[in-house]
Amino acid sequence: MTEKWVYLFDEGRGDMKDLLGGKGAGLAEMRRAGIPVPPGFTITTAACIDYYRENRRFPDDLWEQVLEALSKIEQEAGKKFGGHDNPLLVSVRSGAKFSMPGMMDTILNLGLNDETAQTLASLTGNLRFVYDSYRRFIQMFGKVVLGIDSELFEIELDNVKQKHSAILDTDLDAGALREVVELFKKIVREQTGKPFPTDPYQQLRMAIEAVFESWNNRRAIDYRNLNKIPHDLGTAVNVQTMVYGNMGSDSGTGVAFTRNPSTGENELYGEYLLNAQGEDVVAGIRTPKPIREMKNDPNVPGVYEQFEKIAQSLEQHYRDMQDMEFTIERGRLYMLQTRTGKRTGPAAVKIAVDMVKEGLIDERSAVLRVLPEQLDQLLHPTIDAKAPIEVIATGLPASPGAAVGKVVFDADEAAEMAEHGEKVILVRTETSPEDFHGMVAAEAILTARGGMTSHAAVVARGMGKPAVVGAGSVNVNYSEQQFSVDTTVVKKGDYITVDAGTGRIILGQVPTMAPRVSGDFETLMTWADEFRRLGVRTNADTPKDSRVAREFGAEGIGLCRTEHMFFEGNRIEAMREMILADTLEERRRALQKLLPIQKGDFIGIFEAMDGLPVTIRTLDPPLHEFLPREPEEMQAVADAMGIPVTKIADRVHQLAEANPMLGFRGCRLGIVYPEITEMQARAIFQAAIDCTKRGIVVKPEIMIPLVSIIEELRLQKEVVDRVAAEEFAAAGMAIEYKVGTMIELPRAALTADQIATTAEFFSYGTNDLTQTTFGMSRDDAGKFLPEWVARKILPADPFQVLDREGVGKLMRMGTELGRSTRPGLKVGICGEHGGNPSSIEFCNQINLDYVSASPYRVPIARLAAAHAALESVERDK
Amino acid sequence: MTEKWVYLFDEGRGDMKDLLGGKGAGLAEMRRAGIPVPPGFTITTAACIDYYRENRRFPDDLWEQVLEALSKIEQEAGKKFGGHDNPLLVSVRSGAKFSMPGMMDTILNLGLNDETAQTLASLTGNLRFVYDSYRRFIQMFGKVVLGIDSELFEIELDNVKQKHSAILDTDLDAGALREVVELFKKIVREQTGKPFPTDPYQQLRMAIEAVFESWNNRRAIDYRNLNKIPHDLGTAVNVQTMVYGNMGSDSGTGVAFTRNPSTGENELYGEYLLNAQGEDVVAGIRTPKPIREMKNDPNVPGVYEQFEKIAQSLEQHYRDMQDMEFTIERGRLYMLQTRTGKRTGPAAVKIAVDMVKEGLIDERSAVLRVLPEQLDQLLHPTIDAKAPIEVIATGLPASPGAAVGKVVFDADEAAEMAEHGEKVILVRTETSPEDFHGMVAAEAILTARGGMTSHAAVVARGMGKPAVVGAGSVNVNYSEQQFSVDTTVVKKGDYITVDAGTGRIILGQVPTMAPRVSGDFETLMTWADEFRRLGVRTNADTPKDSRVAREFGAEGIGLCRTEHMFFEGNRIEAMREMILADTLEERRRALQKLLPIQKGDFIGIFEAMDGLPVTIRTLDPPLHEFLPREPEEMQAVADAMGIPVTKIADRVHQLAEANPMLGFRGCRLGIVYPEITEMQARAIFQAAIDCTKRGIVVKPEIMIPLVSIIEELRLQKEVVDRVAAEEFAAAGMAIEYKVGTMIELPRAALTADQIATTAEFFSYGTNDLTQTTFGMSRDDAGKFLPEWVARKILPADPFQVLDREGVGKLMRMGTELGRSTRPGLKVGICGEHGGNPSSIEFCNQINLDYVSASPYRVPIARLAAAHAALESVERDK
Repeated sequence: MTEKWVYLFDEGRGDMKDLLGGKGAGLAEMRRAGIPVPPGFTITTAACIDYYRENRRFPDDLWEQVLEALSKIEQEAGKKFGGHDNPLLVSVRSGAKFSMPGMMDTILNLGLNDETAQTLASLTGNLRFVYDSYRRFIQMFGKVVLGIDSELFEIELDNVKQKHSAILDTDLDAGALREVVELFKKIVREQTGKPFPTDPYQQLRMAIEAVFESWNNRRAIDYRNLNKIPHDLGTAVNVQTMVYGNMGSDSGTGVAFTRNPSTGENELYGEYLLNAQGEDVVAGIRTPKPIREMKNDPNVPGVYEQFEKIAQSLEQHYRDMQDMEFTIERGRLYMLQTRTGKRTGPAAVKIAVDMVKEGLIDERSAVLRVLPEQLDQLLHPTIDAKAPIEVIATGLPASPGAAVGKVVFDADEAAEMAEHGEKVILVRTETSPEDFHGMVAAEAILTARGGMTSHAAVVARGMGKPAVVGAGSVNVNYSEQQFSVDTTVVKKGDYITVDAGTGRIILGQVPTMAPRVSGDFETLMTWADEFRRLGVRTNADTPKDSRVAREFGAEGIGLCRTEHMFFEGNRIEAMREMILADTLEERRRALQKLLPIQKGDFIGIFEAMDGLPVTIRTLDPPLHEFLPREPEEMQAVADAMGIPVTKIADRVHQLAEANPMLGFRGCRLGIVYPEITEMQARAIFQAAIDCTKRGIVVKPEIMIPLVSIIEELRLQKEVVDRVAAEEFAAAGMAIEYKVGTMIELPRAALTADQIATTAEFFSYGTNDLTQTTFGMSRDDAGKFLPEWVARKILPADPFQVLDREGVGKLMRMGTELGRSTRPGLKVGICGEHGGNPSSIEFCNQINLDYVSASPYRVPIARLAAAHAALESVERDK
Repeated sequence: MTEKWVYLFDEGRGDMKDLLGGKGAGLAEMRRAGIPVPPGFTITTAACIDYYRENRRFPDDLWEQVLEALSKIEQEAGKKFGGHDNPLLVSVRSGAKFSMPGMMDTILNLGLNDETAQTLASLTGNLRFVYDSYRRFIQMFGKVVLGIDSELFEIELDNVKQKHSAILDTDLDAGALREVVELFKKIVREQTGKPFPTDPYQQLRMAIEAVFESWNNRRAIDYRNLNKIPHDLGTAVNVQTMVYGNMGSDSGTGVAFTRNPSTGENELYGEYLLNAQGEDVVAGIRTPKPIREMKNDPNVPGVYEQFEKIAQSLEQHYRDMQDMEFTIERGRLYMLQTRTGKRTGPAAVKIAVDMVKEGLIDERSAVLRVLPEQLDQLLHPTIDAKAPIEVIATGLPASPGAAVGKVVFDADEAAEMAEHGEKVILVRTETSPEDFHGMVAAEAILTARGGMTSHAAVVARGMGKPAVVGAGSVNVNYSEQQFSVDTTVVKKGDYITVDAGTGRIILGQVPTMAPRVSGDFETLMTWADEFRRLGVRTNADTPKDSRVAREFGAEGIGLCRTEHMFFEGNRIEAMREMILADTLEERRRALQKLLPIQKGDFIGIFEAMDGLPVTIRTLDPPLHEFLPREPEEMQAVADAMGIPVTKIADRVHQLAEANPMLGFRGCRLGIVYPEITEMQARAIFQAAIDCTKRGIVVKPEIMIPLVSIIEELRLQKEVVDRVAAEEFAAAGMAIEYKVGTMIELPRAALTADQIATTAEFFSYGTNDLTQTTFGMSRDDAGKFLPEWVARKILPADPFQVLDREGVGKLMRMGTELGRSTRPGLKVGICGEHGGNPSSIEFCNQINLDYVSASPYRVPIARLAAAHAALESVERDK
């Protein structure tokens, strides 16, 4: 007794992937669900294995089983393979257990020869289509089965096109294509020494053999080596009836979704076109009709109802919204493909929540159905996707959102126009602290220079304001009050639209859509919160941001950057006084001015975060960032401060650094000038005492930046603890607080066991940690990093998606080392990766306690944290 | 029966450190060797432990044993404790098993009171000395035993000084000091409510108790915690007779070495002074006489012979050159101290080799006797240590050596003057490639700006030329052709001396001493080579450097920086053409010009290194380093190249980076412009083929810099391998070569297992690895790093001494990971740490295969490698 080598689709099951391959099992599953898919059969992987075992000979009885299966599908299709009246054509495809895309080309329209072509032409009334299919079939068969160089066919095709003065393939008419078919047959004869096989059975046998052979072609072997797929699995072969939607007005084709992929409404959504093939829909020559009109289309009576039922059953079967392709051949509906449908963020949320209500899925599945990044669409204004747009430049999407406004080049002017109710976009070569009030006033910011951590980018993100930075092709001309991109000139007052989600700069006013936070969204977030283990905090520097973040569900502040508080208005003056001070006394005087300001900021933040922890980072950036750069600015500041401009120039010169990222910043400032840390600590504790007295629950966590040596942290903690003791003694009360550190330098992670003896918490500053681990400045990497990603040297931009192999290894090490000397050490992340789903998944994996994201990414982080928890449970099963 | 709590020095042994402490055991050992040390005894650590066990009470019988021992030393000294005729005074010192410096102050002259002071005064005839000792004793005893704040004594002393119009303590006469003694006694009475104890026995008992107590004072506990010394060891107490060299003309004091510490000659070397105390010698009020004159000094007959014999026996006993202090009290010789003597490098070498010849030590000990750093003195010119000098500024000692010359501020002028036979020192604010010929011509280089890796520093080190860089106080004024430091002005043509070993700039001409490489030195190096496991290579960029290094014993080149080859003369022009090229074609044309130049360089280097491996690093620095910076320079280059200056300015602007250290450099260049790597590989293989044909044995190792991702290395290796195949095919021969990578970024070390699948060798670039691990730019760290070292935040400058806890951890990890996927992987180090002994020790520890040092440090590295091997054997015992 011989083995069963051939399974009709009706005989297989979805769980028979080993034997039938992924595709064959999937087709069988659809048939089992009662879905009308064009009939066909699968030759098993076992047959392929046997083929190789027997020195490349068909297993006994295989061909007989194929013929038997073929006759069955002939019956079902009401067609005859190689037949004269209604010829059956088939496709032949490989299909291994694991998907191996591109391993072998598909052969379509197998069964064509001069005779069947003729018949089909009269049946479809479309001579051109038939001969186009025929010449493609010969080329495909020639290449895949006979091993003829495709180039030869292309050259001949070009000759014919030239002869007929045709530019595109579509310019060739049926006659010309018939000519091509003859020429192709000639090529086959010349190259193989034999005529093109006209017998469909011979074609089929050769095609099956070719699929078997393809299992061991170079490409396939390389692919399996790369993806660690065993070489002895063999491939299955799927033979399936071809169906045609262009066989007359009772035929047609279409695509549809089971629910509206844009809004999530539970309604069939799609379009169809009669007497057409899928290609016609795509080509856009004829306009398809909305699917609902099919209901009353007299040409295809009853098909809509059938399709609707199928759609429902597919959705029930796969328990998700489906994206389907179908063909109607002479009034008969065939499903060609179904797959999970892509959807917008709002649709994803609505569908997930609806399906729970409908009892189709559970809450856990609903949470997993919505991709965290999809929430972004619900959280920022976006430009109307339907509006026609003229993109003039693109830059880095530094801070999401979209905004429309009049171009203005000066911060003062921006502020003034905004005061008069005008919406403005601030355009600068790059921004500096002087521009802060202009940035506050503007709807969005555009800069020609700078990276994702440039002043403009950081400040804009902090404010949740759209910003596109480093748009290199934008040429700002301040004196002419205009900017140009190539030949396009945009003058002050002209409208532009900034689509910061994609980094696009668009000419004119494009309508934007406000964020929609529906009840479904809230429902979904509540479910997500039940599943996640990771805490979610926010990076916020102002009371306003803190409130926004809290509304979005933040459970505390993971990073409050005190320096951003110094950029506003007269604050920067006191800051500059401090930097320009020559003596400790002068510096103390200037710091004394900053103390009440900082205290006020902290009070506002503590109030907003009542009951939640607030992590405050002491001064971090190099001091020269607070000083003006351009001579004119220096002069202006000197005049305002009443000091000679040379004093400013000298200090700027003195503070200049070859590599500021690796320079005199972070805790290094606080160690050389402990009075700065002292002032900041005093402001924090005075604010905490003030709030506590008013019944507000304050949980300050003071974070020392850029520590690479335990002793650095020890020295700074000493200052903080001393000031705390002083302030508590003066107030007659004590408040619990923590002192911890950023882990943002490799050495901190490598010596985390030492550092944790002093640090009461860790927070990974993955922006800097990525820069130092890769030795790659984020501001400069723009010159090559995009190419690295494009060329797959790196899988993704490591400043957006955490690099697990390098940076992640340090984080894992740092966390384990830290907890080895301080069990239960609280560890978080406050780099921008804290809002990136893949990075959050990794943070969950290495057992961090929380992630901290910018306010507008807090919901994304919450959902991503839930995904991470659910997926890790899945993995552990 | 009670325990033996007290050991006379004569009863102890050198191996009784547990019981007698380090100092007690050492004194006992000297006595055992027959050396006349002032008699004394040690109270055991067991007594101290018992004291604490019994709630701070003296153990039974302790005091009785002390009294008994005291009477023994009275006999030997011929003095009586508290006696009237010849009072015995003693010192009381703590002495634990492990040295704990600064844990407790010493008490000297114990036994003094009004009576004994009077007696001693008449015996010594030095009233002032006695009362000075007396007031010091009260203060010391007051502070250490009675816990009185020293400040109180100081205030009173100041009052007396003011009263007597004295500025220094030494301005006070005996009368005034007697006054001080009375006032001090009053302080004691006031502070303790009791008079100062006049009974010597009471003084002694209290002092012993105070030493016991000191074991658990805060300082001592902290010290033990820090140094991981157990807290239950207890301390011993040493009580020793005081002796005086100022008891008349038959008394005296002196210091001497058993061999000449400057030359190593085997002769007694030192000086003595009659009727004096050690302090008098130090104070320099009287001029001591050479020790050899003591031979015929009628005042101290026979003492020289006795001393000579003692010196010999001490040297025999300790098997090393001794530095001894002695006192003659009334014709009787006492040895107060002996310790291993410090010596110059040349002396160290000579003594070590001589002692082997004398059979005193073995070769292994001889190798360990010479500190690697001491060899530096043998390898560079140094300034004559005896010459009077006027230091006007100090900078970073960027490249060792010393040189004298006329100041010149311009490279052309330097070259011209040198051609006329003048010795010049090139002084620049900073240097650029344009200055190269001036640097070649100069004796030494001085810059006002730049760090240890600045252009000046790197080029100078490469040339083995003295350089002091970053001398911040030097103000260069090109237009006036002078530089100033504060008010000192040095004009063009003035002589200065650059002492680059210490970073000092000295006015005028200081005589320098040429390096001496004696036969002993060679002998020692041969021994060292027998013991070391680590290979020693050199960092050399030119045939000349390669030859020098080979003469110094280099076993190959560990780092050949190809970019330095581009800085010379018309080479930089071709380089600039390449950088300014707009198209691949233009770039290839420029590279074509560089090809023969590079090939020529490599031929020279391969010839010099015949038979030894040569590691060549492909282009590393950011391209903007090759372009001029100042507008005038740009104009000059533009004129020379016949292109508009805007083109240069534009490219400079375009290549400008926020953090060049982390920017577009290293393999990133070779990946974006593979044609550069291709040209370099071609030059290497063409040179290798050329040399091989002439019978030269070439072992090229091509090293890709700044890799952080395996794929980067893979792409570069592909280029190298392809070019190799092409060149070998063309030449009809093949040469073995390796392609490896620098490990100089944390991510490379962290993913070394991946990288080793492609890399055929690793070489740690610890300069950059230190920068990125610490997040500290070497060029900028000058602002705070010295303070970090001074404040002990860091134990040493991590750019000089490898940071084992952070950078070293990465190196250990990288080496282990690399060898996990490529067993036996060859791993070296080519950062400047490769020439630093402590770092070499660590490299030996983590099983690197070789270190690579600059040519002039090769012998140091060889010796350090021998030390590392010998010490690791010692540890493993």
